[in-house]
Amino acid sequence: MNWALLSRMLGLLAMLVGGSMAFSLPWAFPICGQTAEFETAGFRGMVASIVCSLAVGGALSFFGRKETGTILRKEALAVVGLGWILAGILGALPFLFSGTMRSPGVRMTVVDAVFESVSGFSTTGASVLTQLEDLSNQADGSVTDGKLVPRCVLFWRSFTHWLGGMGIIVLFVAILGQLGAGGKALMRREVPGPITETLRPRVRETAISMWAIYMVISLVLTVVLMIEGMNLYDSLCHTFGTMATGGFSTYNASVGHFQSPLIEMTIMLFMVFAGTNFSLYYLVLRSKDPGGGLLKRFAPLYRDPEYRTYLAILAVATVVLTISLVKNGIYPNIATALRHASFIAVAITTTTGFGTEDFTDWSEFSKGLLLLLMFVGGCAGSTGGGMKVIRFLLFFKIVRLEIEHAFRPNVVRPLRVANVPVDNSLRHDVMVYFSLILMIFISSWMILAAIEPDTQWRQEGHTNAEKLLDCASAVASSLNNIGPGLGVLGPHDNYSEFSVQGKLLLTLLMLLGRLELFAILVLFVPSFWRVQ
Amino acid sequence: MNWALLSRMLGLLAMLVGGSMAFSLPWAFPICGQTAEFETAGFRGMVASIVCSLAVGGALSFFGRKETGTILRKEALAVVGLGWILAGILGALPFLFSGTMRSPGVRMTVVDAVFESVSGFSTTGASVLTQLEDLSNQADGSVTDGKLVPRCVLFWRSFTHWLGGMGIIVLFVAILGQLGAGGKALMRREVPGPITETLRPRVRETAISMWAIYMVISLVLTVVLMIEGMNLYDSLCHTFGTMATGGFSTYNASVGHFQSPLIEMTIMLFMVFAGTNFSLYYLVLRSKDPGGGLLKRFAPLYRDPEYRTYLAILAVATVVLTISLVKNGIYPNIATALRHASFIAVAITTTTGFGTEDFTDWSEFSKGLLLLLMFVGGCAGSTGGGMKVIRFLLFFKIVRLEIEHAFRPNVVRPLRVANVPVDNSLRHDVMVYFSLILMIFISSWMILAAIEPDTQWRQEGHTNAEKLLDCASAVASSLNNIGPGLGVLGPHDNYSEFSVQGKLLLTLLMLLGRLELFAILVLFVPSFWRVQ
Repeated sequence: MNWALLSRMLGLLAMLVGGSMAFSLPWAFPICGQTAEFETAGFRGMVASIVCSLAVGGALSFFGRKETGTILRKEALAVVGLGWILAGILGALPFLFSGTMRSPGVRMTVVDAVFESVSGFSTTGASVLTQLEDLSNQADGSVTDGKLVPRCVLFWRSFTHWLGGMGIIVLFVAILGQLGAGGKALMRREVPGPITETLRPRVRETAISMWAIYMVISLVLTVVLMIEGMNLYDSLCHTFGTMATGGFSTYNASVGHFQSPLIEMTIMLFMVFAGTNFSLYYLVLRSKDPGGGLLKRFAPLYRDPEYRTYLAILAVATVVLTISLVKNGIYPNIATALRHASFIAVAITTTTGFGTEDFTDWSEFSKGLLLLLMFVGGCAGSTGGGMKVIRFLLFFKIVRLEIEHAFRPNVVRPLRVANVPVDNSLRHDVMVYFSLILMIFISSWMILAAIEPDTQWRQEGHTNAEKLLDCASAVASSLNNIGPGLGVLGPHDNYSEFSVQGKLLLTLLMLLGRLELFAILVLFVPSFWRVQ
Repeated sequence: MNWALLSRMLGLLAMLVGGSMAFSLPWAFPICGQTAEFETAGFRGMVASIVCSLAVGGALSFFGRKETGTILRKEALAVVGLGWILAGILGALPFLFSGTMRSPGVRMTVVDAVFESVSGFSTTGASVLTQLEDLSNQADGSVTDGKLVPRCVLFWRSFTHWLGGMGIIVLFVAILGQLGAGGKALMRREVPGPITETLRPRVRETAISMWAIYMVISLVLTVVLMIEGMNLYDSLCHTFGTMATGGFSTYNASVGHFQSPLIEMTIMLFMVFAGTNFSLYYLVLRSKDPGGGLLKRFAPLYRDPEYRTYLAILAVATVVLTISLVKNGIYPNIATALRHASFIAVAITTTTGFGTEDFTDWSEFSKGLLLLLMFVGGCAGSTGGGMKVIRFLLFFKIVRLEIEHAFRPNVVRPLRVANVPVDNSLRHDVMVYFSLILMIFISSWMILAAIEPDTQWRQEGHTNAEKLLDCASAVASSLNNIGPGLGVLGPHDNYSEFSVQGKLLLTLLMLLGRLELFAILVLFVPSFWRVQ
């Protein structure tokens, strides 16, 4: 292991994270509507975090300042794995330094803050904060606790989504450049999906293009949301949550707060965009055939088998959920059922996790279906989590070939996607990925069920019988970077009551899910550190 | 497809099933303690079933009488898949012809009878019968319905376990012989596990050896159980249930009925024997080294990595369950907790499914653990169901190699079991098997949750919240040939309340599980039937 190089890379990354914290500072100023003393504490916490991050970054860079070696596969794994852990820790500082409270009177612990920060960067959107809004001015005076989270810290929380969505490493490569083959190895470990396409000959250009597309779509969404009635702060935060398929909101009721079908439809549409492979957008923009017309321009999109499967899954899930909701009489009419079913289906499948309705009240079948949709996720090369549609597509094709193989052992067919034969090693990789996810899911589920006491479920009107499914949903939700789970983890509840060990486990799962396992798994293998 | 050959084989198999029904006839006679009119109806039903089976067998054999072709891979798949379906249907006849009742006043439907019969042959032990005993002579007069199942039919129910345990196709090969390479192809599809060892040069001899060992151990268990106080009828039925890892009992309370730690320990020990690879027994018997002593004689057993893993899993499961039971204060002392934990751990892991205690009252974590143990199953080449220990052993080894591969792409290590390199195709097969089981489990779970109405869970003191987990356990229990599930399917409940479609789905899963998928899956592939 080239320690000096590793240190320099991590140092630069820490400075990048520290620098991005500056974007949340304006929201602490009176001009943005904040004057209270609490906000000043937030500002001071934010500044302290920036200083801290830059100092850590500076120290690490200084240690590795003379190193000029290239990044190999091994270093790339370590930079991505450790870099994300470091970002998660630095991102937790604002919560700690600002005195953010988990619930009235209870300050966030270190584990809480790291959970929240990793949940942000990994675009999970799972939260331990029980109160995002200032409810102290309620007419009935029922809430007198005032604010728990300073406005600038809440902005930072959503901003981590946006950074983590397209990827801090990709941003790093875009800004730094000059990494050569190392940049490619780094990106391969961060950009989701089994194949990482190279859009442009130089890796830095690819990274810049991806971030540029991401920024433009985000800008469009922000403007649209403002036109639809949100203020700048809310529209920025919800844009971050949507485009990164994250799910952090600025309100307790999430997107449901706005009670606006228009805003829901807009966000739903952009969640679908965010779950799409960003290379396809690049191809659409680059297609320069003047006589082709609109249909031909969008050919890269609708000819992509993964994109078609992705839309089909969303459509089928919406229809099935709507039928189940209508059949069980949960909503008075089909239109309302369709509205909520489509939003939740998209929010869960793209792994955003925004909430409008509490699906914990839906039928048992719907809940099971949502649990499965959690694993699907977006397309490869999107900001979505989960296992990615392409892996499921490949998986079903492999299984079909295998069944045929049982009675026609001598017929060897190559695996094809869109009539293009796929490399045999990919076939193997997909199977390994499914197996690993399954293994991690099951073992974490059991560990979580063993850690959390049964008695916890007897509170708040829940029963023991919900525990196993709730734990399964917590693990699935963290591993696939969604956010809400079932039962006690429903869209209107959260992870604050989980034990310290439970929160650490889920934090680890979020990182495993976001980085598609290997960059984190290897960190636990002793021979990885010994290898030359 | 060689239809005539297929027909002849199926015909012979039908006659074999019909012939084995004769063994239950004696239990209808007064000398065995039965005199009532109800038992006479059972006798008549049994005889009618024998006649029916022989007639079907005769007709099918007659159709293919002139065929002398050899059995190829394709025909072997069809014979095994269709043969088991046929056996399941013929085995259902006694229930129908004898007027067996599912619950007081409700006769078994065709689907009920096929469910019970396939559950028997596949050694699942899941039942739709709510009442096995004659409770009409109770002192308090609370039950006045009398018997629901004739004694000879109940014997047949347990006998199907014994036939299916070592395998009707293996028995077929042992009796018929002269199948050459075809016999090997047939056995490969029925004997569980990824590798089918050839004990002796000729396939018929292998089949005979396996059945002989099976019979001898069964005989020993029958005698031991009789010494411990059971009558011949009960000890035979429980031997069948134990040695086949089936789980049908002759009492509502299963093995718990006897309230005897001695009987429980005996049955537990023999369940462990039944879940062991029978080839190992053959090797132990064949080891002729006179100077080696006992230790050397049993070397094939304790040197086998699968057998060691199998025992380790049972030991760890017992310890963890005991700790969980003691910690949650379910039983007054450690000895009682250990007694029940060990029995249930062995009963579930070996896929027998006998019950002593209702584990539905245990902690949520215990229930989750039992659900996972369901998938483990016995060793390859045993009568146990599940996915087999060897597949898990290979799976973990593969996963370890894959993680290393992520940072050492150029190091290629062969997969080794007990220092012997394993064929690369096996590596692939294991991954495919895991993926297929996962896919079938998940889709069946969702289908079952969609079929069964939520309202069914509101009865009998259960809640909606249990539904998804109960359905998952029903699917896992059927697919892995265990029997009992969780919640409404606990050891003291059963499948009688499930819908017709639900029962058919579970029946299919039992066959899929017993034949390790392919022999059943190919039947649904149109090109399988067209292939020459």
